[in-house]
This record gives sequence, C-alpha cells and structure tokens, in this order.
Amino acid sequence: MSSLSPTERTTLGRKRHRAATDRAVLHAVLDEALICHLGVVRDGAPLVLPTGYGRDGDTLYLHGSTGAASLRAASGETDVCVTVTLVDGIVYCRSVNNHSMNYRSAVILGRARPVTDPDEKMHGLRVLTDHLSPGSWEHAREVNKKEFAAVSVLALDLAEASVKLRAEGPDDEPEDVEADAAWAGVLPVRTVFGEPEPSADLSPGWSVPEHVSGRVTRTATAAR
Amino acid sequence: MSSLSPTERTTLGRKRHRAATDRAVLHAVLDEALICHLGVVRDGAPLVLPTGYGRDGDTLYLHGSTGAASLRAASGETDVCVTVTLVDGIVYCRSVNNHSMNYRSAVILGRARPVTDPDEKMHGLRVLTDHLSPGSWEHAREVNKKEFAAVSVLALDLAEASVKLRAEGPDDEPEDVEADAAWAGVLPVRTVFGEPEPSADLSPGWSVPEHVSGRVTRTATAAR
Repeated sequence: MSSLSPTERTTLGRKRHRAATDRAVLHAVLDEALICHLGVVRDGAPLVLPTGYGRDGDTLYLHGSTGAASLRAASGETDVCVTVTLVDGIVYCRSVNNHSMNYRSAVILGRARPVTDPDEKMHGLRVLTDHLSPGSWEHAREVNKKEFAAVSVLALDLAEASVKLRAEGPDDEPEDVEADAAWAGVLPVRTVFGEPEPSADLSPGWSVPEHVSGRVTRTATAAR
Repeated sequence: MSSLSPTERTTLGRKRHRAATDRAVLHAVLDEALICHLGVVRDGAPLVLPTGYGRDGDTLYLHGSTGAASLRAASGETDVCVTVTLVDGIVYCRSVNNHSMNYRSAVILGRARPVTDPDEKMHGLRVLTDHLSPGSWEHAREVNKKEFAAVSVLALDLAEASVKLRAEGPDDEPEDVEADAAWAGVLPVRTVFGEPEPSADLSPGWSVPEHVSGRVTRTATAAR
C-alpha cells in the first residue's frame, strides 16, 4: 500500500502518533462519510461550508449544488481545504480532562480545479451521484443538457492529504485508574439509515428499489 | 423568539428560501451536533479541522484539545469560521439532477478570543464537557491545576451566524413526476449511540452510570 506524503501543512503538530499515513485509510474515510466541509478564503477570512463530494481514485470531485458561494470563490483554482470527519465514539475517562472522542478525519489541501471538459464533467457528476446515492445513476432520469450546463463540478487532487484518528479506549492517568472513583469506557457513535419514506406524490405501484432499501441499517446490532 | 442578523457574509447567496434566520434553530443545531469544523486562514490558505465545542447562551466555547494547530493560529483573535452540520436524509428524485440531502447547517463567523480569565476558562471547560458528555463534570475527577494550565479554550460570539436547512421530500420536475419512471423519497440519516463499552481496566464492580446509559439509542424505531 502506498503511503500519504504529508507536508508540514498537513502533518498536524500535536499527537503525531495519531496520524495514520496510509492511503487506504484516507480512501476509506472519504468513501464512508456523506459530506465534506469545504474551506476557502473569502475577503481574507475563512469560510467553511458543507459540500457534497465523491472520490474516483485519487481525485475528489466537489458538487456545485451545495456551498455554491464558496465554490464560486474557489472556481479560479483557489486554495481549498477539504475536511471529512467521522465520529466513532465518545470516550469517558476517570478524569474530566482526559475525556475524548474516537474519530477518523481526513484533511486535504490543494487547488480545486473547475471541471470544464464535458466528458470529465459528466464523469464527475456520476462519481458524485454514486457517492451520495449508489444506483441512482442507473435508476433515475439522466442529466439533460440544460441541467448539465447549470451545474458546476470541481476536481481536487488527493496529493496533499493526511488522516488523523483515535480508535481506542480511555487513556487515564495510573493514579485515576487506581482510585477507581469514576466509570470509564466508550459510547459508540454511528450513522445509520432509517426506513425509506416514499414521496407523497409517488404512484401506488412503487416499492422501494433495492439500491435504496439495501442501505437501511436493519438493527442497532447489525450496525456494529 | 429573536431573529438572527445575517450579514452579507453569512446570508448564503443561493436558495435564500432555505435560510432559517431564527436563533432558536441555530441553538438547536449547535446543541444537537457533536463536533464543529473550525476554519482559519494559515499562511494565506484555508485550514479546516474538526473541533470540540459547547454553547452557553450566545457564546460558543471551542476546545484546544482538538485542532490544536488551528487554535494556536486563531489564538490572537483571528478570524474564524465555525460550521456545524447535521445530515438528516438523502433525497432520491426521479431525476439524477434533483437528488439532494436534507440537512441543518450553522455557519458562524467572527473573531475567536482566547479565554484567559481563570473563572471563565473553568466555566468554558464545564460547557465543553457538558456538551460532549453530560454528567461527566459531576461524575469524573475534576480538572487539576496542571491540566487546567495545559488546556486552551477559545470563545466565539454567536453574533454573525446563519442557519441553512433542507427538510422536505423530493422536488421533482412536473414532467418527471408524470413520467413515473423512477422511485422518489427520502432515506433518513441519523446519528445514534450504541451500547457502552466499559474500559478493559475498569474494576468489576462498575455498572454503566445513568448519564452514559441514558444516551444509548435503544432501537432504530426509537431513534426516529
């Protein structure tokens, strides 16, 4: 497996042992999360907006339908920071100070490039759709010319990226473990999909298609 | 209820009808989410890091234990952007183009202020703890002098803030509804808490305290 090449900008200074520099971990985080937080600089100040995205190899495509203002600001190959975070648990410790979270977070720095080539733009839209709603590209009505012209897609190379994570139990001071005066453990946090809610104007003949129903988290146990 | 006072910076240009300018909605989003994404400008480029926070009235406290590099960059009353996003659903439409997400997102702009007054800093730590793990401030060992000195807390006023949300079903073109050629509906997305996992070094006498067990999402149905 290839390793990420963290630069000084992406190698977070604190707790370096939490930096997982493996590209497979980066890909896994990006593939599991639903949204990213896209940061740009606007009028000298930071602006961070939730944005849809999708990954194809080492290219991240960003959707123009969310965070439109920041995407416009970023449309001239502006510096961006794309951060994707999965919260996995709340870590209860014997001391208030050591309370923490289990999480996986990817930070990608780079210059986002507006996708203008029609073939790549259509490909980018497919990657975005496959990330948000796998199966919809095949199931739903395809993008028409008017829609295609109105939408914008950015591409960002995953060259300068880092992953940071915590995935462990409480990290208490020995004297606090010895004192045994408080509970310690992890409360797992998960993102689950509920039962699909068909549109009110759907005709009666429809059942929920497999590409949607197959995503439902069946029980809390099954989600683990 | 008071209204937010969105400035040009926080009034997102696109789809203004999605901007909910009510302070109660802002507070609800901030109180429900577990983490924020903190954006700063570093060396002229944006940097976005997941960060712990807590709210007291119209003050947001940010924790120095996550995103330490960005908090250092922000420690001199630097401009920050704090964004908090809750994903509520994936919206499947008859057309690929209209696919969307249901979400609630708060964007707060301002200058973060390092909290140096000892009383306010201790209060900020309590607010942060009450947000991450309600009940831990009372249950766990209190912050000692060494820990107190090592931690950093920032405060951010909620003056310049906006909330944007989507909370509705598919928004299809009339001709696509008529054609009836694809399923449409919402796949709900929820964050749930699993069964607590006691620390391996916990003494056998402990049962999970109520302030932890009470957070567990009992069933997928109960989570709705």
